[in-house]
Amino acid sequence: MKLVRFGVSLPQELMKKFDRLVKRKRYPNRSEAIRDLIRRELVHEEIASDKNVAGVLSLLYDHHKSAIAEKLTALQHDHHQSIISNTHVHLDHDNCLEVILLHGRAKDIKKFADGIISIKGVKHGGLHLTSAGAGLD
Amino acid sequence: MKLVRFGVSLPQELMKKFDRLVKRKRYPNRSEAIRDLIRRELVHEEIASDKNVAGVLSLLYDHHKSAIAEKLTALQHDHHQSIISNTHVHLDHDNCLEVILLHGRAKDIKKFADGIISIKGVKHGGLHLTSAGAGLD
Amino acid sequence: MKLVRFGVSLPQELMKKFDRLVKRKRYPNRSEAIRDLIRRELVHEEIASDKNVAGVLSLLYDHHKSAIAEKLTALQHDHHQSIISNTHVHLDHDNCLEVILLHGRAKDIKKFADGIISIKGVKHGGLHLTSAGAGLD
Amino acid sequence: MKLVRFGVSLPQELMKKFDRLVKRKRYPNRSEAIRDLIRRELVHEEIASDKNVAGVLSLLYDHHKSAIAEKLTALQHDHHQSIISNTHVHLDHDNCLEVILLHGRAKDIKKFADGIISIKGVKHGGLHLTSAGAGLD
Repeated sequence: MKLVRFGVSLPQELMKKFDRLVKRKRYPNRSEAIRDLIRRELVHEEIASDKNVAGVLSLLYDHHKSAIAEKLTALQHDHHQSIISNTHVHLDHDNCLEVILLHGRAKDIKKFADGIISIKGVKHGGLHLTSAGAGLD
Repeated sequence: MKLVRFGVSLPQELMKKFDRLVKRKRYPNRSEAIRDLIRRELVHEEIASDKNVAGVLSLLYDHHKSAIAEKLTALQHDHHQSIISNTHVHLDHDNCLEVILLHGRAKDIKKFADGIISIKGVKHGGLHLTSAGAGLD
Repeated sequence: MKLVRFGVSLPQELMKKFDRLVKRKRYPNRSEAIRDLIRRELVHEEIASDKNVAGVLSLLYDHHKSAIAEKLTALQHDHHQSIISNTHVHLDHDNCLEVILLHGRAKDIKKFADGIISIKGVKHGGLHLTSAGAGLD
Repeated sequence: MKLVRFGVSLPQELMKKFDRLVKRKRYPNRSEAIRDLIRRELVHEEIASDKNVAGVLSLLYDHHKSAIAEKLTALQHDHHQSIISNTHVHLDHDNCLEVILLHGRAKDIKKFADGIISIKGVKHGGLHLTSAGAGLD
């Protein structure tokens, strides 16, 4: 992969603040911080344009409630082609954290997430979308 | 104000995508796009750390409802030292858009906004916080 | 406008936490807090579906820089049919806060905002979209 | 767990829109939709107040780059007491999705996430914070 370079000019005071940010966020150098800011912006656009993306759906629920584990399993099998894997954590006696890894079009993943989050017994759900990776080097 | 320069290295493919972003968002050049990404990140941190910021509170309400205009006015006079100005727009026969410009500590502005948004009759409210400006050149 | 009622059942502990939230956010009663949560969700969907919305664009800039005031004025006149009004505040010797009120389709407003935020000299910009109001009573 | 009930009054038109939302999001009934809106608000406050929370950190990276896998592993061992588990997915020939489940104070989890996201080679990272569960039934 070929690297290309370009110059950026910043007012001195902004540069000082940027350098403190680079240090605070523990970036190895300015370039890596800049690349991260650029990629984050590109991923936002990718998601908004309904391309193929990867998704991470986090669910908090109480496994004692309303046959929820069976419902979650059934719904996941209905959408098995979108699901990569899932991980289950026993947070305490009652609470589970379940994380489902997904891939597909942004719109489909959002719809699936809506269907899961709305299940009675799911206390909190959150969907994080990210790029499926191509071209973000 | 003194300008300083530094070099950024990007993988070729990321550079191509970045250049398309610069064009799509109509930036005059790469440096201005980079400066914007950096300043946005700095403003996020400034707000999180409860410094002095400026705020724009947008309110949608129906002026026919529940003496809301008087309540809004009374509440604003109680906090007159935080309020810079407000602007009122008649969206249609019923709906008003009112925009209140604020300055002060992030926490105080948020608290004031909570108190306004919770008034019966306010249909939707949103607070945008920004830097009060110093050092973001 | 006719009011209709329905019953909501909550686990006791969640109700306690909700009541503390109602108090903390200074809602006059539970119904108003619930209405606010519902309307906020509806506005999110309205904006995502590119309907006619109202927008509040907040800009922070240094009026000494690069003929920015003329550029802002020119760009606004090019889009005068989308602009309701604007308000200008002198934050300090250098910094201005300008708030532009807009109406139109969500996509057009976003594109206009991108064009403004990318102008050299605009230090920070933020767009808050809200409903144009109909049916959110 | 004891259920308690209360009545909510909505203007008729808002009720219609709410009922369409309940259907679109596939909630079994209005109460479950209301509970979700309330819990989401409570989780936001919990996270803001730096309580003990659970976190899901999603990372996209190219495993060919810069010894990144070793760095990720080393950093995780340094913070093993905050990490519950991690899951790794091979998205394509180059790209990996790694999901790290965390628990601890919100501030510590955010700091750890900053340290990971800033590693050279991590293309995109996102942190989703959720409640550790107690009292959100």
